[in-house]
Amino acid sequence: MENFSFQNATKIIFGRETEKQVGKETTEFSNKVLLHYGGGSIKKYGVYDKIINSLNEAGVEVIELGGVQPNPRLSLVKEGIEICRKKDIDFILAVGGGSVIDSAKAIAVGVPYEGDVWDFYMGKKEVKEALPIGVVLTIPAAGSESSVGSVITKEEGEYKRSIGSNLIRPKFAILNPEITFTLPDYQTACGAADIMAHIMERYFTNTDNVDLTDRLCEGTLKTIIKNIPIILDESKNYEARSEVMWASTIAHNGLLGTGRIEDWASHDIEHEISGIYDVAHGAGLATVFPAWMKYVYKENMNKFIQFAIRVWNVEFDFDNPERTALEGIQRTKDFFSSIGLPVTLEEMDISDDRVEEMAEKCTENGPVGNFKKLNKGDVLSIYKLAK
Amino acid sequence: MENFSFQNATKIIFGRETEKQVGKETTEFSNKVLLHYGGGSIKKYGVYDKIINSLNEAGVEVIELGGVQPNPRLSLVKEGIEICRKKDIDFILAVGGGSVIDSAKAIAVGVPYEGDVWDFYMGKKEVKEALPIGVVLTIPAAGSESSVGSVITKEEGEYKRSIGSNLIRPKFAILNPEITFTLPDYQTACGAADIMAHIMERYFTNTDNVDLTDRLCEGTLKTIIKNIPIILDESKNYEARSEVMWASTIAHNGLLGTGRIEDWASHDIEHEISGIYDVAHGAGLATVFPAWMKYVYKENMNKFIQFAIRVWNVEFDFDNPERTALEGIQRTKDFFSSIGLPVTLEEMDISDDRVEEMAEKCTENGPVGNFKKLNKGDVLSIYKLAK
Repeated sequence: MENFSFQNATKIIFGRETEKQVGKETTEFSNKVLLHYGGGSIKKYGVYDKIINSLNEAGVEVIELGGVQPNPRLSLVKEGIEICRKKDIDFILAVGGGSVIDSAKAIAVGVPYEGDVWDFYMGKKEVKEALPIGVVLTIPAAGSESSVGSVITKEEGEYKRSIGSNLIRPKFAILNPEITFTLPDYQTACGAADIMAHIMERYFTNTDNVDLTDRLCEGTLKTIIKNIPIILDESKNYEARSEVMWASTIAHNGLLGTGRIEDWASHDIEHEISGIYDVAHGAGLATVFPAWMKYVYKENMNKFIQFAIRVWNVEFDFDNPERTALEGIQRTKDFFSSIGLPVTLEEMDISDDRVEEMAEKCTENGPVGNFKKLNKGDVLSIYKLAK
Repeated sequence: MENFSFQNATKIIFGRETEKQVGKETTEFSNKVLLHYGGGSIKKYGVYDKIINSLNEAGVEVIELGGVQPNPRLSLVKEGIEICRKKDIDFILAVGGGSVIDSAKAIAVGVPYEGDVWDFYMGKKEVKEALPIGVVLTIPAAGSESSVGSVITKEEGEYKRSIGSNLIRPKFAILNPEITFTLPDYQTACGAADIMAHIMERYFTNTDNVDLTDRLCEGTLKTIIKNIPIILDESKNYEARSEVMWASTIAHNGLLGTGRIEDWASHDIEHEISGIYDVAHGAGLATVFPAWMKYVYKENMNKFIQFAIRVWNVEFDFDNPERTALEGIQRTKDFFSSIGLPVTLEEMDISDDRVEEMAEKCTENGPVGNFKKLNKGDVLSIYKLAK
């Protein structure tokens, strides 16, 4: 196990009707907020009204900025920063999924910074200060509701880049599984791939002796694998929605990575896809991850055998252990397919015209990943395996 | 799953030589601390010197109060409160295991309270304020390093009572597994029973559909079950010590209880034993828990079957599912025995002279536990099963 430091102070408020507590929780920080959200779905399904009511009752002044798109854009972030500065707003309330929360985090670090907020995402500046953020989560997927991360896309150049800082962990996150009843199946499935990827990016490590976190990872993966098919069968199953929602937070709140060197190559490789083609991040991950697994599994076959046996209940093949590892990879891919996700670039209608350019951009700051360090040629091979 | 609110802001600093960071971490809160510890072991093995050096280098003024005993006493807590008041101390640094940390927490709530600190433990007052606490952990067992709990024994009347409040979670906890190399085997084993009990008090619930936390509980239990025998074989095995140390914190930091109704009867029943006889809490738990299991398993046999299969790898007995449940209970008891713990009152040289009185005191504020509500007669039966 590696030395580590871990602190996650996000207050989780979980359960039925909890969104009604948002006013009270917000006033712990401010009486004037930027309410940040995406398209119209929160208005369509009544979440917006409940939140506005709760904020009004608590006497909170609300300035709105909607319109966050999937793969959130830098231009809207800059608009948010301007609004906060002009109106002296010192708290951001994100109502949505990972895109909205990530956009709110970008605004939060941008407001107190004199330069261009993109500097943080290009690694030119370290985050030293950020406005506090609160969250009402509507999509269990990104784990951004209590994570250190934010991913933003700069339209010009089609760059998708991330930051990580303890300072942007939300102060509170309200998770009501009922709010997710209306999520389309495809979005539920994309969320599942994202959650599983967050776990697997940590699980596949060469750090030895990480029993506890291995088992916590395996348990969280099994929870998703069990409950997603239940939800696809019955979208208003509160219990299954609850398991997935809580698992999505646990998957990415930092706990599962304690004491281990994490990988993150698959996320980097995927970001080049959704940076250009605007496919759902989860769909991109369902395509990239199995290809990555096939490319790297020989680096540490035991880890893949353990994964196959403990997560997918594959029987150990004593005659040919490698087959056990490969069967685990196949089951991962089959699972993604079975829940309606694409597992090849072709299924996403993406030709391989630009894979060379994507591999180049993906590795422009050096190799990606840790389980195996991947150079441009490796990344290109993975795109081709995903074809 | 039940609605819940969860927040744990304790900063965990984990790994080799991390105790050297104590000065720097402390100065985030104060430059004058009460250094609280137990007997001489921290001096004997050099931990004390490292901590004093780190505090001195950071310019922290240190006032000492040692002498905390296992099952920490109210009288020393009161002494600590007096010292803090007289010397204007506003931060307590606990160096030790659960007893020292619990004692520090009691001092922390006592200093700003005008009345008798025992009021909190008797449930007469709610904690509204507490001094901040830091921890350097020396015994992985109680989980007090990031928990909401504190257990104190009042000598007069032999009362052992607890409080729980988010306000007494330590601000930081430094966990260096190397510090635990010198723990005697018996103390390591008692710690294991305590850790496992913290998990099982949460695991055995009648709340349905708690997949994720069930699996996190099972993974944490399996980590202890695997690694304790390794440690007993090889006391300086850093990796096994690391797994147990991190698992001890996870077991009791609140995460594993999210969304579930917890039990805690076994702890209440045990407290009457160690309140009178001054046996190790872990030894008492190893005795009480299997007896409790035998008494209550029919309340929700499926939970016990799941426990047997997933934690102890028992094969499901399709002809007689009850046998599966009973086998899980037997393996729990056998495991405690195998690591050198007593599993009967007799093995602890405790006669059943006072069990009637203990059962009476245990239930004087009403029934204990939630998996099955236990009245005086039930508790008495459990003491007799543990004979």
